[in-house]
Formats: sequence, structure tokens, C-alpha cells
Amino acid sequence: MGKFYQKLNARFRSTESSLCIGLDPHPAYFLKEKYPKSEHPYLAFCRELIDATAEFACAFKFQFACFGSRGMEDDLEFAVHYARSNHPDIPVILDSKRGDIDSTAAQYAEEAFTRYGVDGLTVNPYLGSDSIDVFAGYSDCGVIILCRTSNPSSAELQELKCGDMMLFEHVAHLAASKWNKNNNVSLVMGATHPESLSRVRQIVGNMPFLVPGIGAQGGKLKSVMEHGLTESGDGLLINVSRSIVEAGWRGDLDFDFQAVHDAARHYSGLIKSTKSELS
Amino acid sequence: MGKFYQKLNARFRSTESSLCIGLDPHPAYFLKEKYPKSEHPYLAFCRELIDATAEFACAFKFQFACFGSRGMEDDLEFAVHYARSNHPDIPVILDSKRGDIDSTAAQYAEEAFTRYGVDGLTVNPYLGSDSIDVFAGYSDCGVIILCRTSNPSSAELQELKCGDMMLFEHVAHLAASKWNKNNNVSLVMGATHPESLSRVRQIVGNMPFLVPGIGAQGGKLKSVMEHGLTESGDGLLINVSRSIVEAGWRGDLDFDFQAVHDAARHYSGLIKSTKSELS
Repeated sequence: MGKFYQKLNARFRSTESSLCIGLDPHPAYFLKEKYPKSEHPYLAFCRELIDATAEFACAFKFQFACFGSRGMEDDLEFAVHYARSNHPDIPVILDSKRGDIDSTAAQYAEEAFTRYGVDGLTVNPYLGSDSIDVFAGYSDCGVIILCRTSNPSSAELQELKCGDMMLFEHVAHLAASKWNKNNNVSLVMGATHPESLSRVRQIVGNMPFLVPGIGAQGGKLKSVMEHGLTESGDGLLINVSRSIVEAGWRGDLDFDFQAVHDAARHYSGLIKSTKSELS
Repeated sequence: MGKFYQKLNARFRSTESSLCIGLDPHPAYFLKEKYPKSEHPYLAFCRELIDATAEFACAFKFQFACFGSRGMEDDLEFAVHYARSNHPDIPVILDSKRGDIDSTAAQYAEEAFTRYGVDGLTVNPYLGSDSIDVFAGYSDCGVIILCRTSNPSSAELQELKCGDMMLFEHVAHLAASKWNKNNNVSLVMGATHPESLSRVRQIVGNMPFLVPGIGAQGGKLKSVMEHGLTESGDGLLINVSRSIVEAGWRGDLDFDFQAVHDAARHYSGLIKSTKSELS
């Protein structure tokens, strides 16, 4: 098992939960108040989010688009560095869903693992093995491949029946049989399709899943766990982004990081209690 | 037809060709010589590439990964601005293959069309309609969806047989039937699979294709044109990146932009003469 998953598993044990904190710094939350005075407003906001949630975080996941849309890549770089320096036990994922031919993928791998220095990266499988292998060659890092996404129209392609499997099952099969030579591959499995988690769990064995879609997107935690946990009761990294970050938003008042802390505690506890209930 | 394709078609007519200049500023080409002294080395290099090739360019395509891997997003922004200001007739494409759920796609659309200010963007279809519609809502801009990519392992998913069509044909069908409400969608169709171009041309009618894979990747121009041209002899934007930019590379000597100019002239002429031969 690669270093990324060793770090993640250690964190599962120490928090007794499996919550991933999704860091989506939408400017509406913070640009109107104290941060515009900062030279690095996104960094300043993320630092407080990180510190408010670290106690409950098995991983941090940064949404690239929030930074890229506003030219805030430097803030992303500094925020990743801040998280890794101040909370070195917590792996950091960059959610940027990269996918390109091999020579270009090599540059995206450099972007994620060298420039930003994250531990894990989300990757799109549409181009096949040569677009994945470059990332998976970084054996200490996690490569998290889109399999079944949480959005309403994901079925259009992902549920197409290709022979005796649906497309997302083919992706799972390729991930387990070809792409995981370094034991550092996992899958994005949206919480909004719990039945898909069982099907993919059968294909990939104990491979970890990153599960978005709990909270704002409506996925049901208990159902996800029933369908997705491994036999030993592991294998799910449950991501919550908006429902934790938005908890601190108070309109025109100052952002409330205590409320963010409480929301992270709530979701971490919910994961823990749901797991106990099922075991 | 959206503004992007009006601009592109006007350029097809004025150049009598259909060459897209792929701007992939690999640092090996230039970082050792005069550009490190510049505060914006990627911008300085791209400006010279742009001016050396503009005469023959129907479009410029910037490869995001070259900039993202080195923290050079500001240079990308300035280089796009330079191209649009100095060569306003030539549409600019950002090749970053974005694809995410709708709320995130909205931020990627902002990144491409507002921050960088490009005319067109490449997009990955794996997440389906709600990941495409946000981009296609920018009706003046081109949305260029990955259909059949040029890389060796593209067949792994893209040629899976789903019912009576292969996956890439499903993508083509969705592009023509659901995603093109604003007449601003086109497809990436790799030159390395010319037979796929005929199949997709039958599905999508006159929809334009961006065709990578000529040159370094080995795609054959004549075969691409036989299979991919529309009945009126249009519909193909032929991208050449490495074979044009690398033409100027002289190892330890100064980069030779005249050679880049000549390579662009060569490919533009080749497209023109091949088209004549076939008509």
C-alpha cells in the first residue's frame, strides 16, 4: 500500500472516522469582509478553515476551480503548504480532475505533486491507461479516478451498458486490473448512487473510495456505508464540502469559523455513529 | 452559428487553409537562453511564437498544462491577451479539458472565458450534460468536447461497444442532439483514427472537428481529410503543436523563430494542397 493510503489509514484510526473536508473557498463567503485587505485573501480564509476543521479531518480536498477562476493559484499553493506544515498527518488532495495524453499528463502530475505538493489528485479516465499511468507512477501519491460521479447527468455515459457491464464498472475493472500496479489508485464514487458502490466494491475489493455528494448534493450516508464499506468496515473517505464551509456563512456578518468547526464535528460524529450502527 | 465558428470560418476563407497552431511552450526550448532574464519568460516566448505563425493560423490553441506545471498562469493570461489584441481575427482556444459538476463547471467557465478571455475551450464529456451545459451557455464561445482522442490507449473506453454504438459515437450523438442548443459545440477527433472521423461525421453533420495528432503523433493528413471533411469540404481544424514549435529548437543555440514560421507555412500549405487534391 502506497504512502498516501498509509497516511489516510492512520488518520482513519486516530479520528475513528473517515471525513474528508472539502475546501471550496467561494468568494461570496469572504471577499466582502476582512480578507480583501489581505494580499492573499483565499489563503487567509483557507488557513482558518483548515485550523477549524483539522481535528476531524482524515483528508483535506482543495477544489482547484475556486482558485483557478480568480487567478488565485499562488494562494492554493500556499494553502496546501500551510495544511501540510501545520497538520502533517492529514493527507491533502487536489480535486482538479485532470486527464490528457501522456506527455501532457506528465506536466499535470508535476503541477499537482511538485508545484502544489499535494498527496493525492483526482483524474478523469476518458483517455485510458496512458493518461493514468504517468500519475500512478508517483507511487507515494494517491491517484483518485472518476468512476461514478455524484451529479444528476452522470448516468448518460457512466451507465451505458457496454457488454455485460456498465461503463463505470469497466472503469473500476481497469483501475483494479491495469492501473493499480503501485497500489496507489482509488475511485471517486458519488454518494448519490449507493447501489453503484456495491457493484464496484465487488469488482475492486478493498480499494478506497472518495465519496462526494453527502450533504448539499443529497446523498444518504447510511445507504452509502451499507453499500460501500469493505468487509473490515473501511474503504470510504466521505467528502463534505459545502455543508461544512457554508455553515460559517452569516450573510453580512463575519464568517463564523466556530460554526464550521461544529459542522465538521457533526459530520465526523455522524460517520462514526453510522459505522457503529452497521457493525 | 455562434461567434466562435463565424470567426473560425472567416479565417478558413482568408488563409485558404485550416491550421490550428498548438502553443505548447515546453521550458526545454527556451528557459536556458534569453528568457530567464524576463519576468515573464513564457509570455516572451509565446509572443514570438504567435507573431511567427499568425499569418498561417486559423486558430491558436494554448496547452494549459505547460503553464500550470510551472505556475505561469499569469503568462498564459497575458499571452492570450497579446494574441487577441495583436491578431484579433484569430480565435484562441484553451486546451485544458475541464469537466466537473455544474457548480464547479461554472467556475471553470469563468476561468476560461472571463479570466483568460479565450474564444474556445476543450471539455471532457465523462460527467454528462450538466457538466457541459454551463460551458455551452456561453453562446459566443466554442465548446470543444473530447470525443475520440489521439492517444494510443484511447480505445480502452472510447471504443467500448455500448449497444449498437461505440462510446465515442454516443458522445457524438449527445453532442449533436442535446449539447448543441447554441450551435457552439464541436468535437476533438484524433487524427490517429481516421475511420472514426467518417463515423462521427455521419452522426453530427457539419459540426466542426478539432483534429490533434498530425505531426509528432503520426496521424496522416490525407486520410483524415478523406474521412472527416464535410460535403462542402470544410469542418476540420487541423492542430499541429510539437512539429511546428520544435522546428525552432536548436539545442544550445538561440531558438529559431524563422524555422517556426517556415514549419507553419509548410503545414498550412500541406492542408491546402491536400484539400485541392481531394476536391
